[in-house]
Amino acid sequence: MKNFKIALAQFSPHIGNIENNTAKMIEQANQAKAQQADIVIFPELSVIGYPAEDLLLRPSLKNRTQQALSQLKEVKDIVMVFGFVHQAEDGQRFNSAAVMKDGEILGIYNKQNLPNYSVFDEKRYFNLGHQHLVFEYLEHKFGVLICEDIWNINTVQQLAQLNVDTILVLNSSPYEVGKPQHRIATMTELTKQLRVNLVYTNQVGGQDDLIFDGSSFVLDREGQLICRAESFKEQLSFAEFNAEQGSFKAQETQPELETMAEIYQGLVMATRDYVQRSGFPGVILGLSGGIDSALTLAIAVDALGADKVQAVMMPYTYTAQISIEDAAEQAKRLGITFGVAEIHPVVNSFMQTLYPFFGNMPADATEENLQARSRGTLLMALSNKFGNLVLSTGNKSELAVGYCTLYGDMVGGFAVLKDVYKTIVFELAKYRNSISETPVIPERVITRPPSAELRPDQKDQDSLPAYDVLDAILYAYIEEDLSQQAIIERGFDPQVVEKVIRLVDINEYKRRQGAIGPRISSRAFSRERRYPIINGWKAGS
Amino acid sequence: MKNFKIALAQFSPHIGNIENNTAKMIEQANQAKAQQADIVIFPELSVIGYPAEDLLLRPSLKNRTQQALSQLKEVKDIVMVFGFVHQAEDGQRFNSAAVMKDGEILGIYNKQNLPNYSVFDEKRYFNLGHQHLVFEYLEHKFGVLICEDIWNINTVQQLAQLNVDTILVLNSSPYEVGKPQHRIATMTELTKQLRVNLVYTNQVGGQDDLIFDGSSFVLDREGQLICRAESFKEQLSFAEFNAEQGSFKAQETQPELETMAEIYQGLVMATRDYVQRSGFPGVILGLSGGIDSALTLAIAVDALGADKVQAVMMPYTYTAQISIEDAAEQAKRLGITFGVAEIHPVVNSFMQTLYPFFGNMPADATEENLQARSRGTLLMALSNKFGNLVLSTGNKSELAVGYCTLYGDMVGGFAVLKDVYKTIVFELAKYRNSISETPVIPERVITRPPSAELRPDQKDQDSLPAYDVLDAILYAYIEEDLSQQAIIERGFDPQVVEKVIRLVDINEYKRRQGAIGPRISSRAFSRERRYPIINGWKAGS
Repeated sequence: MKNFKIALAQFSPHIGNIENNTAKMIEQANQAKAQQADIVIFPELSVIGYPAEDLLLRPSLKNRTQQALSQLKEVKDIVMVFGFVHQAEDGQRFNSAAVMKDGEILGIYNKQNLPNYSVFDEKRYFNLGHQHLVFEYLEHKFGVLICEDIWNINTVQQLAQLNVDTILVLNSSPYEVGKPQHRIATMTELTKQLRVNLVYTNQVGGQDDLIFDGSSFVLDREGQLICRAESFKEQLSFAEFNAEQGSFKAQETQPELETMAEIYQGLVMATRDYVQRSGFPGVILGLSGGIDSALTLAIAVDALGADKVQAVMMPYTYTAQISIEDAAEQAKRLGITFGVAEIHPVVNSFMQTLYPFFGNMPADATEENLQARSRGTLLMALSNKFGNLVLSTGNKSELAVGYCTLYGDMVGGFAVLKDVYKTIVFELAKYRNSISETPVIPERVITRPPSAELRPDQKDQDSLPAYDVLDAILYAYIEEDLSQQAIIERGFDPQVVEKVIRLVDINEYKRRQGAIGPRISSRAFSRERRYPIINGWKAGS
Repeated sequence: MKNFKIALAQFSPHIGNIENNTAKMIEQANQAKAQQADIVIFPELSVIGYPAEDLLLRPSLKNRTQQALSQLKEVKDIVMVFGFVHQAEDGQRFNSAAVMKDGEILGIYNKQNLPNYSVFDEKRYFNLGHQHLVFEYLEHKFGVLICEDIWNINTVQQLAQLNVDTILVLNSSPYEVGKPQHRIATMTELTKQLRVNLVYTNQVGGQDDLIFDGSSFVLDREGQLICRAESFKEQLSFAEFNAEQGSFKAQETQPELETMAEIYQGLVMATRDYVQRSGFPGVILGLSGGIDSALTLAIAVDALGADKVQAVMMPYTYTAQISIEDAAEQAKRLGITFGVAEIHPVVNSFMQTLYPFFGNMPADATEENLQARSRGTLLMALSNKFGNLVLSTGNKSELAVGYCTLYGDMVGGFAVLKDVYKTIVFELAKYRNSISETPVIPERVITRPPSAELRPDQKDQDSLPAYDVLDAILYAYIEEDLSQQAIIERGFDPQVVEKVIRLVDINEYKRRQGAIGPRISSRAFSRERRYPIINGWKAGS
């Protein structure tokens, strides 16, 4: 065996933009070469990006991919292993990896395990591969796998039995809390067990509701972590193989992120990528003085810079004075554009217009929704006029039980906290305050009891169980898929459990019309939890 | 062989409501028995209904299905062939058919072809079956297939080679224009070719965005149509086999529906099922004097009855007098509850509230959207207060190019015309007028040039190409998946094609937040056309 240097190109593709992605890959290959790398590994489906969804069905994909391959063939003196859509003569379509050197394709590997669960729909697009790919370079034997393949022990064992020294895995593995650690822990066991080195390159970047964290790494055959790329950043990382010692050179690896730091950085990246790639100059959001909008604002500023962020406070009769003060205070601390628009005239004009219909009927949720929808419409008008994207500020707990107004506080193109339970919202706010000298979120926003402020002295806890109880029930029902009976058996009040589950079930229609937002949990709404709206399933055992 | 009578139970399940569906199946089996049927065939997955989506992943499904099977076992003296989720000991889950008689399961068939394209995601839920099921009854040999199986010639040939006399196919085959005719045409060829009788039972009913048309039928081995159930209705149909003649008794079959009648009835059924199954007492919609809301109103009244339908006209400065007249006239003809709410005060209050932000900036789409959103908010307030579901009235052409306002005219729980191109809207309106003595849609609504009436003298055709051109381009791009270049080559103005495609691509975010609506085309938005929002694919060749 000879010495060699391997580069992990953890890059962020623009989904569907084959031209740009290819140019970026060439640039990265050249950078790797400039640093004396012999091999550069890209993520899964790097040419088109992951997930390209029904773009994969477009007839012209084949030609566009061919053009990309032609351009990549211009790169010389480095082995490139990258992901692309391989369309065979017989019309079969594969999720594939190519090994390319000096304009030649040395081998093509077709993914053998196609995930079709959770957020994945690969069987909609791809045929199954049936063959391993092993190639020798610099007297070293490499095997190639793609993402799901590495989680199938049979596939990996078969490959290892071909006397492979190092497995190269191309991934587009979506983030969820703890996933970076989970990958390394599992792969550490695997490399030790099979006595094989492992190079794991992952896509990075936000794509609609999916976050790709990157967190690429190299493990040696002893299960030792050789290098780990940062999470949520594009990065070119390197690992050097020393032939004399028969192993990769140990490097200092950075400590893992704490959970809240990990989530926070993920949300920041997802927000930045969504806004920038959808071509908006900036964002606008409604600041209420509550914790959800406060946290959303902090994330927006960290993602885009204060000059790209506009907030507007829209008080009404039930808005507490401290809400107005806290919103203004946070805006000041962050240095964003801030305005106030009282909504009394709008709400009154609605009520007058509706009077011939409503007469003296008693007030109910209708009037609360009118406030929320007046705000939503104002935000959208500001967005239309100045071109900024509206960020919606609702959290997962609210969305789960429908404690939010469709076309009201739910307006917006991107719902930053959509997959973040309220209890985690509090943790994230505290985390964000802990990392800057001056807390960016006024303390009172975190400590006061949450309220939608849509009627006098309203508190969230008048309508909902305490958030720690609510979130525990929601987690059991959504993430763990437990039945009503099983959740009650954990010791929760049966009536509360029944009510929460009922609310989750009947609010599917609301969620279906909500903005997309970044997934951080092991079961996010929409792409991952596909429930019918008309749904006669009865909660129970 | 002996004589026998077979019943086709074309029934409409309530998705997920296993208890109700089972009770209904038992009732239908008893009805079939009362009419001397020997065998009754239900649709695919009749016990849980199709598509149950992620309800299929719920851990308690296995127990619930067992309970349903126990109840079905109480039915005596008739062979029942029905669809259910079969969970094997090893955890594998199958889309299956059971043959049950007098409390015994005579056989279980696991579907061998799982569609995972278009609107189908069966590989997310089911494992593949690998075995045919043939059973003998009354000296007659029956084979069982499920939906997609019958479209796979290999599967069908293998089964026919087992000397089967009659194939029983359980289906949940979604409607699209022309599908009922297409099924019979294809199956006629198949039965003639294989010399086998075919009993085809299909689910009926609206489930979210899918319409199941029923249209069940029996073909004999000569390809002769023996019976055809009506479309869009629950029905128990029968076919009698005469052993002496070795064939099914010919019956008179009803003529097929004309295309517009077929679409119209499908939309009516879908609307009725959505409203009733979501538990709303009725519907409300905004009546503009235009053709989309006029047609939606007619469908709503046909679906639910005039007493369940409320409409409100919300005029503004740009609303033509004839719009107000025509809306009132249609409401009168149909006998629905009708009200008028001028939106000037609301729009003015928004403009005043926004003045500190907008100053004297020139008017643009912002002000148009404000009108639409004022109307949307009023409709939602009326819905909240009186409990009626809002029907949204936009058509497929508008939604495709984003010629509609999010949170404005797009508000609502069900978008009746979501998958209906504008040119078809006109046809449907004429069709509906043709079937009643007094036209329910005032003639002028159909003949005047379409306008959103959001600025002075606005016409749709100021912003969009003529609808026949627009729809032809949209059809080529969406349904046919043609590239920009290929569409231009059909002879359309290149600039127009480019603009239309660009509009379709950039408006994915809008459609994503729109209400669901019934699918009638071969490629509907949302479930069937899954495009990323952040999408760098460039139109071109």
